[in-house]
Amino acid sequence: MLFLPEDRTYLNYEDMIKNESQMPADKRIDFVTIVTPNFAHFAPAMLALENGFNVVIEKPMTFTLDEAKQLQKKVEETGLSLCLTHTYSGYPMVKQAKAMFAKGMFGKIRKIWVEYPQGWLSKLSEREGNAQAAWRTDPKKSGKAGAMGDIGTHAWHLAEYISGLKVTKLCADLNVLVEGRALDDDGNVLLKFDNGAAGCLMASQVAAGDENALKIRVYGELGSVEWAQHEPNTLLVKWLDKPTEIYRAGQAYLSDITKANCRTPGGHPEGYLEAFGNIYHNFALSLMAKMNGEEPTAAMMDYPKVDEGVRGMAFIDAVVASGQSDKKWTEFVV
Amino acid sequence: MLFLPEDRTYLNYEDMIKNESQMPADKRIDFVTIVTPNFAHFAPAMLALENGFNVVIEKPMTFTLDEAKQLQKKVEETGLSLCLTHTYSGYPMVKQAKAMFAKGMFGKIRKIWVEYPQGWLSKLSEREGNAQAAWRTDPKKSGKAGAMGDIGTHAWHLAEYISGLKVTKLCADLNVLVEGRALDDDGNVLLKFDNGAAGCLMASQVAAGDENALKIRVYGELGSVEWAQHEPNTLLVKWLDKPTEIYRAGQAYLSDITKANCRTPGGHPEGYLEAFGNIYHNFALSLMAKMNGEEPTAAMMDYPKVDEGVRGMAFIDAVVASGQSDKKWTEFVV
Amino acid sequence: MLFLPEDRTYLNYEDMIKNESQMPADKRIDFVTIVTPNFAHFAPAMLALENGFNVVIEKPMTFTLDEAKQLQKKVEETGLSLCLTHTYSGYPMVKQAKAMFAKGMFGKIRKIWVEYPQGWLSKLSEREGNAQAAWRTDPKKSGKAGAMGDIGTHAWHLAEYISGLKVTKLCADLNVLVEGRALDDDGNVLLKFDNGAAGCLMASQVAAGDENALKIRVYGELGSVEWAQHEPNTLLVKWLDKPTEIYRAGQAYLSDITKANCRTPGGHPEGYLEAFGNIYHNFALSLMAKMNGEEPTAAMMDYPKVDEGVRGMAFIDAVVASGQSDKKWTEFVV
Amino acid sequence: MLFLPEDRTYLNYEDMIKNESQMPADKRIDFVTIVTPNFAHFAPAMLALENGFNVVIEKPMTFTLDEAKQLQKKVEETGLSLCLTHTYSGYPMVKQAKAMFAKGMFGKIRKIWVEYPQGWLSKLSEREGNAQAAWRTDPKKSGKAGAMGDIGTHAWHLAEYISGLKVTKLCADLNVLVEGRALDDDGNVLLKFDNGAAGCLMASQVAAGDENALKIRVYGELGSVEWAQHEPNTLLVKWLDKPTEIYRAGQAYLSDITKANCRTPGGHPEGYLEAFGNIYHNFALSLMAKMNGEEPTAAMMDYPKVDEGVRGMAFIDAVVASGQSDKKWTEFVV
Repeated sequence: MLFLPEDRTYLNYEDMIKNESQMPADKRIDFVTIVTPNFAHFAPAMLALENGFNVVIEKPMTFTLDEAKQLQKKVEETGLSLCLTHTYSGYPMVKQAKAMFAKGMFGKIRKIWVEYPQGWLSKLSEREGNAQAAWRTDPKKSGKAGAMGDIGTHAWHLAEYISGLKVTKLCADLNVLVEGRALDDDGNVLLKFDNGAAGCLMASQVAAGDENALKIRVYGELGSVEWAQHEPNTLLVKWLDKPTEIYRAGQAYLSDITKANCRTPGGHPEGYLEAFGNIYHNFALSLMAKMNGEEPTAAMMDYPKVDEGVRGMAFIDAVVASGQSDKKWTEFVV
Repeated sequence: MLFLPEDRTYLNYEDMIKNESQMPADKRIDFVTIVTPNFAHFAPAMLALENGFNVVIEKPMTFTLDEAKQLQKKVEETGLSLCLTHTYSGYPMVKQAKAMFAKGMFGKIRKIWVEYPQGWLSKLSEREGNAQAAWRTDPKKSGKAGAMGDIGTHAWHLAEYISGLKVTKLCADLNVLVEGRALDDDGNVLLKFDNGAAGCLMASQVAAGDENALKIRVYGELGSVEWAQHEPNTLLVKWLDKPTEIYRAGQAYLSDITKANCRTPGGHPEGYLEAFGNIYHNFALSLMAKMNGEEPTAAMMDYPKVDEGVRGMAFIDAVVASGQSDKKWTEFVV
Repeated sequence: MLFLPEDRTYLNYEDMIKNESQMPADKRIDFVTIVTPNFAHFAPAMLALENGFNVVIEKPMTFTLDEAKQLQKKVEETGLSLCLTHTYSGYPMVKQAKAMFAKGMFGKIRKIWVEYPQGWLSKLSEREGNAQAAWRTDPKKSGKAGAMGDIGTHAWHLAEYISGLKVTKLCADLNVLVEGRALDDDGNVLLKFDNGAAGCLMASQVAAGDENALKIRVYGELGSVEWAQHEPNTLLVKWLDKPTEIYRAGQAYLSDITKANCRTPGGHPEGYLEAFGNIYHNFALSLMAKMNGEEPTAAMMDYPKVDEGVRGMAFIDAVVASGQSDKKWTEFVV
Repeated sequence: MLFLPEDRTYLNYEDMIKNESQMPADKRIDFVTIVTPNFAHFAPAMLALENGFNVVIEKPMTFTLDEAKQLQKKVEETGLSLCLTHTYSGYPMVKQAKAMFAKGMFGKIRKIWVEYPQGWLSKLSEREGNAQAAWRTDPKKSGKAGAMGDIGTHAWHLAEYISGLKVTKLCADLNVLVEGRALDDDGNVLLKFDNGAAGCLMASQVAAGDENALKIRVYGELGSVEWAQHEPNTLLVKWLDKPTEIYRAGQAYLSDITKANCRTPGGHPEGYLEAFGNIYHNFALSLMAKMNGEEPTAAMMDYPKVDEGVRGMAFIDAVVASGQSDKKWTEFVV
């Protein structure tokens, strides 16, 4: 029971957007949230934008790269805001890593390793009544990629988010490791970044016994960071010539933007829901500022946007093309 | 001070082999150990074999694949024993992982991830008087590969040793990430195994802040194992539908071959030197058995041999060829 | 901005309780939450109960044991519900530990170790404008105990909650380790439980460098559990003759009551706020059931209650008395 | 097969000492090692000292405090060396902790927690043919303490070794938790140190599921250290206002004495046998120096000696007396 007023509870998004757009500006909804399967992202998002509503949308942003570019164009035209829920970029210690690289504390980045093993699709669960598995492994609902679209995009986003670099080309080995599956359930991808750094991205949904083990390591000339989603309140900061440091959420020595995304004092663990909350919270703060005619701060604007959604779809295109190619390298173009 | 008899301390290997081979059979040395840089492996090994001495040799076994095959042929001709010190295969919990896959406890293997990041070559140390760095980064002493030869071969060996599978093709991205270096100091390699499993191997010596962080994960249909050299007495055993188990060295529930390679009761950590010791110990036991006219047991014969040395050199050849190729896949041929 | 109606936002609790109690039953508030310093718990709680309101209250429940007993009597008279926010008992994996002992999976309990080191009072912060430090170290606001009242009570509660046992006597060494402090900032306590088990409880707020490191280990004849608040989604389950198991939140193999307190699938970490939420959630569900004339389930009733609040105050009394005594053992009496 | 000369392999210690003492000084053994059960320490140690041999001896040093004092007196009279194998003080990272406190890096020590849980005596194994269990639980062979003598002494020693402090009084709760056992198999002990610091020591051999989990935390005004034997190559160094640091064996930033006790570069784990080796190695170096008429360095003299053996026996006496006393505090007197 969500205590929503009955006359504003709708059976479909068309009714909602039509009805809400006819309400006075100070009554109508501020934004629409789209958490449907991938194939059902574009239409409601476009309709919302066309009718003046800001949008929060699940990743991958759309079904195709073309749809993504249409949304991007509409956002630019309307000046509305679109927030893409790459949840893991909402964790405070991810933001700490980003802040440390932005300050140049580790020198030039040389190497990025990001891995995302899950085990939950180790069986053919899509044939056993698992609804989450069913749409994610169905090309008509999920798009042209399976594991790479579902979690590979998270891994790719985290790499670009923390490093501030962009992938320029890649070499993908995509696999269907459970017989009978229609989309990739595993993949290993070599990466090159725009500063010359090398990388490797691994995503698998058949890593039997792993839960949701997203982990990233970014290596610079002077040191490196390591962050794992299973222990999200810890960031390992490693150095060439001195002891590894354990940075912890909620501590005074963190960057301002990190602290703005912590709710509790050190030692009171926060988790996935708070990371998700940070994405929404920053988005909402930036929206409120805009509504009040104020300039949102950098901290408020720290949420994934439509451009990252377009790049995510381009990542899927490149990774699938590479998976089918005999050439070593495939360009990552948007 | 090693308390060696003065008249049997030699200035070079030629003298040693000549002199020892003239001693009575019950007095002469049982085997020769070669721990020189790679370019100086073949000649003493071949001379030793030609004069009837067994050989223990550092990896990679030789400077070139051709030399490796010559040693292999000589070992076959003479019936002598050659032990290759792939140290990490000497750890008890590595043997436990091997034993569990051999028993089929995890079903068919689907995926292998093996990573070996070190940070000690993050600077151009070979120009700053570091002798270990100097020969390892010199193509005339190390061979055609740098990091891939020095530690990539360990990672590759561990993958084949634990899984019982063989790499059939690979796709390598080799990098020189420290300017001015003559050989690869970093590489990411996509792998395919002979049962169709996918794999990924990473080796880097510019992973600033990492020590010697060899780690392997092998995923089967029903579960997986994870082993990291930094905590070598622990093997994580993960399952699809039940809690992960922490297998520990020295415990009664381990396989016989694992227990034969443990010296201390559970909770008394063993380390790198004991793993090294296990390689030598097993080799020595097998030699003693042979000398006594007995058949060495499987446990005694559990040390890396000349065939693994040949495959290791073929791995280097394939990885370097792939690194220079525009094709995605390069065959791994011996 | 909490979007509360202006005419129901009150300046003090007396006004609130008076005004709300005059509203129609279906409009008035369902319960009162008291999160003031310890000395200001009793009066609002008693007034709320006297006026028919259920109560949620911070621990320790009151300023004195006598106050606690008055609240207990009032709860019994009125049939109202009182919920005591011993947050850490809200963690799912704590409930899993409790469930496993309740089922007898480890045999008779022999030993309980519970430790709660914090470092945040390592300096005389109460003199440097830290408001949280100021009242907690002030006997007039905090009561007769410092660290033992603030966090020792949590540790004691966790021990009784998981084990189902009761402390019968104790031997306390209470210390003021920062000169100039008015109340204990550290203590070590030997415990005896009603089944004969031995125990040890440590609480410190001068453990420089520790955050909020509550940890408990409970040992039975056949095995034991270990849970640490810093990694709350993990419960180590250890056995005499087989590998330690890593139980994880969100997994299908957990007890029903554990699963009812998980919000996310395995691998999506939950934290302190969700544990707090579980206390409130269970309390609210039980209240709703009662209001609907239904019997709350055991899962709904799984929140700390007034009896635990009375025992908590008795713990403080016993620990302070023991700290001042030359006798080894002091009875824990309610 | 240890390749010992047949004519110097003896059936009992009397023969050995008699025969060896008649050999020329440059041929005879340098020291005697005593690794018998506790009741059989004193006689061979005393005979060795009386005949001019240095002694290495297992802990606890003797069967009674009186014996220990006799050995101490004899060592002082003869000027010979006695080394007590408190193995855990041989770990490099334990020495690092000691060095950091000696330098005053953490300010005054306020608190020491040391715990030593083992699970191997969770059953009445002494009745099931376990020889190690049999003598350790037999008062005639082990002495007046069980777990406290066997492992409590290690924990006590580690606390004094790292901190440089001395225990002045204690309050012990000793337990027999497995019915039918003749000696304590568990104990919790409150401690006071000579600088006023508080402490707590726990030792148990019925901690079902634990291996050999010795762990110590020492808290100063400015920070603290944490070391656990299960991961001996790591020392956690925690600070009030900055990130925790992970000090690692084999690294250049360690103290000189730490580095002198490391054999391998960082990331090549060393373990229990190397810690044991360090004790012997330092003892042997100091002996060689003395034989050569040189002054042994501080690093060479860093091994446990007869005075620590006497204090260890006094610890057992105090802990057993306290366990039987109704008074809270028992003096720790030598």
